[in-house]
Amino acid sequence: MDNIKTPTLVVKESICRNNIKTMAEKARKSNVVFRPHFKTHQSLKVGQWFREEGVEKIAVSSFTMAEFFADDGWDDIMVAFPFNPREIDTLNKLSENKKISILLAGNESLPVLTKKLKNKIDFYVKIDVGSKRAGYKPDAVVRIEKMLDLADMNDKLNFKGFVAHAGHLYQAKSIADIKNQYEKAVKNLQMLRNYFSRRYSDIILSWGDTPSCTVIDNFEDVDEIRPGNFVYYDYMQLKAGICQTDKIAIAVAAPIVAKYVDRHEVVVYAGAVHLSKDSVIENRQPAWGMVVFFTKDGWQFPKQPAFVRKIYQEHGVLSIKHDDFFSLKVGDLVGIIPVHSCLTVSHLKDSYYYI
Amino acid sequence: MDNIKTPTLVVKESICRNNIKTMAEKARKSNVVFRPHFKTHQSLKVGQWFREEGVEKIAVSSFTMAEFFADDGWDDIMVAFPFNPREIDTLNKLSENKKISILLAGNESLPVLTKKLKNKIDFYVKIDVGSKRAGYKPDAVVRIEKMLDLADMNDKLNFKGFVAHAGHLYQAKSIADIKNQYEKAVKNLQMLRNYFSRRYSDIILSWGDTPSCTVIDNFEDVDEIRPGNFVYYDYMQLKAGICQTDKIAIAVAAPIVAKYVDRHEVVVYAGAVHLSKDSVIENRQPAWGMVVFFTKDGWQFPKQPAFVRKIYQEHGVLSIKHDDFFSLKVGDLVGIIPVHSCLTVSHLKDSYYYI
Repeated sequence: MDNIKTPTLVVKESICRNNIKTMAEKARKSNVVFRPHFKTHQSLKVGQWFREEGVEKIAVSSFTMAEFFADDGWDDIMVAFPFNPREIDTLNKLSENKKISILLAGNESLPVLTKKLKNKIDFYVKIDVGSKRAGYKPDAVVRIEKMLDLADMNDKLNFKGFVAHAGHLYQAKSIADIKNQYEKAVKNLQMLRNYFSRRYSDIILSWGDTPSCTVIDNFEDVDEIRPGNFVYYDYMQLKAGICQTDKIAIAVAAPIVAKYVDRHEVVVYAGAVHLSKDSVIENRQPAWGMVVFFTKDGWQFPKQPAFVRKIYQEHGVLSIKHDDFFSLKVGDLVGIIPVHSCLTVSHLKDSYYYI
Repeated sequence: MDNIKTPTLVVKESICRNNIKTMAEKARKSNVVFRPHFKTHQSLKVGQWFREEGVEKIAVSSFTMAEFFADDGWDDIMVAFPFNPREIDTLNKLSENKKISILLAGNESLPVLTKKLKNKIDFYVKIDVGSKRAGYKPDAVVRIEKMLDLADMNDKLNFKGFVAHAGHLYQAKSIADIKNQYEKAVKNLQMLRNYFSRRYSDIILSWGDTPSCTVIDNFEDVDEIRPGNFVYYDYMQLKAGICQTDKIAIAVAAPIVAKYVDRHEVVVYAGAVHLSKDSVIENRQPAWGMVVFFTKDGWQFPKQPAFVRKIYQEHGVLSIKHDDFFSLKVGDLVGIIPVHSCLTVSHLKDSYYYI
């Protein structure tokens, strides 16, 4: 790590592989397809670790990512984002020799697909199971039916199933709350499947989000799981009790550039453009990351926790109110567990370091 | 703009050039050096517009940016970030044929410079005028003197002056508050200059931040100004009363991918990885951007303001509670004035569109 000069994502391979293995085994036991969301890592190397666990299908959240992984030989890719009609040419190009599936969160993008789609693709209907972001409500059966009527007029569009992402579970109050909400949502998805099974055979129910995929053991009520964040976890998941520190596989290596003994603060080269501005509340104040110290083969959490307490474009300011402060020197690297690994990776994906 | 497929920075050239011209004229009138901070735009084209106003010296906040602009012929570049000893090789390489100046915010990086610096460079001492981020306090004369003693032992290090960035003025309560704090800070800087003028001639006082550089007309008490954000301004500056809508030169073009009439919300392809998670409070709720509508040669603000009210990795959700909602279609582009243009540019600098 002596060669690290600027903010860098450090991935601990053994923890990451273990997270992948745990989730893959859980999927196998439940007999569901494991289609991990690759937006969290955006790394070809980590993708390879998934391959070694038998993964063949993936989800991504943009066509840019789909192209990135398609170039590396991934050929069953769900672009898990409401289809953007402006990217029809990209879809046509990618689907020439890859199995690309898309999400429809309404019927408004159907005219473009009908007019311009060149290759046969699968599509999933996005169901809003409570996050109020995108998709049909589970009881919007009439509107979904109307949309499927339109889609069926195009023989290149193959209806594959229903997709749900319970993003609101990131704000769940407890593990029990997550389990309750999962059960309720899955019942709704099953009712939809039952209703439409008169018309389509083998409707797939595809379920996402790391909190539920981590705390629930048996997924027999759905057909596919698409968690992403679990590959690294992060400070937000730790704070929510979804993971413990031994599951966190990523830390940002941040060069120390100044220290101020009067306020027990250390200034690092790692700011909002690296860590993102996602924060959690820690002791009534926002924190933009959690401090760890690198060791020979990983990192350790300090006895008394310390946090990124101010953040700017390129600077982060760590408040370290105990003796660890004195062991840090300008020029050293300090580790920062990101609040939200997906965003941090998105900013730093060109500077990965694997240990 | 029909070819825009993904979130894209749209710059209105006439407004941007006007912002540059206004600031350049102000600097000329005050007879101070205008060293604009290029971190806000990170664009070679916008850099060219500065050149056409006579600008020759620039500031950036990373060596990566310094390399980017050096490659385009800029040869007087201040890296306005506490010097990171891990980047000594980059500094040595860049300073071979460019005039690079650095900031020292303490004496801890001097040993590396003393040992490894290859070319003569200028350095500035960073003074903390109230933001409590980095630098010496103005009354830390003894510590500054000690640091200069050390630096003077290295004949490659040339002390040039004092640098201040009043980042805390972004949270100022009023224009009067900004002016008061500017005057107070500048008095402190002048005292430092007077004290050290026994030892150094021509000490430069270099002053930053867009709020003060916008509201103050006469900079005769300093030698150099380094504003950056003013080139585009943004929603945060508008909200703080620093600029009006006619000075905002940037909007993100966001493809509409879904709309939901029951909640009067529009889902766009433009999320935290494009806009950043910087927010302002608007009607007691966070807003991650302000909605505008593109016209033939720019954009207009709606009669009733509308905002980005939810944000995710790739999605933004606009709440539009009035009739404008009905004129928006999936597949259209909608404009979003970013909360903080510097961060948004940092995320989207590879997709610029100039009108």
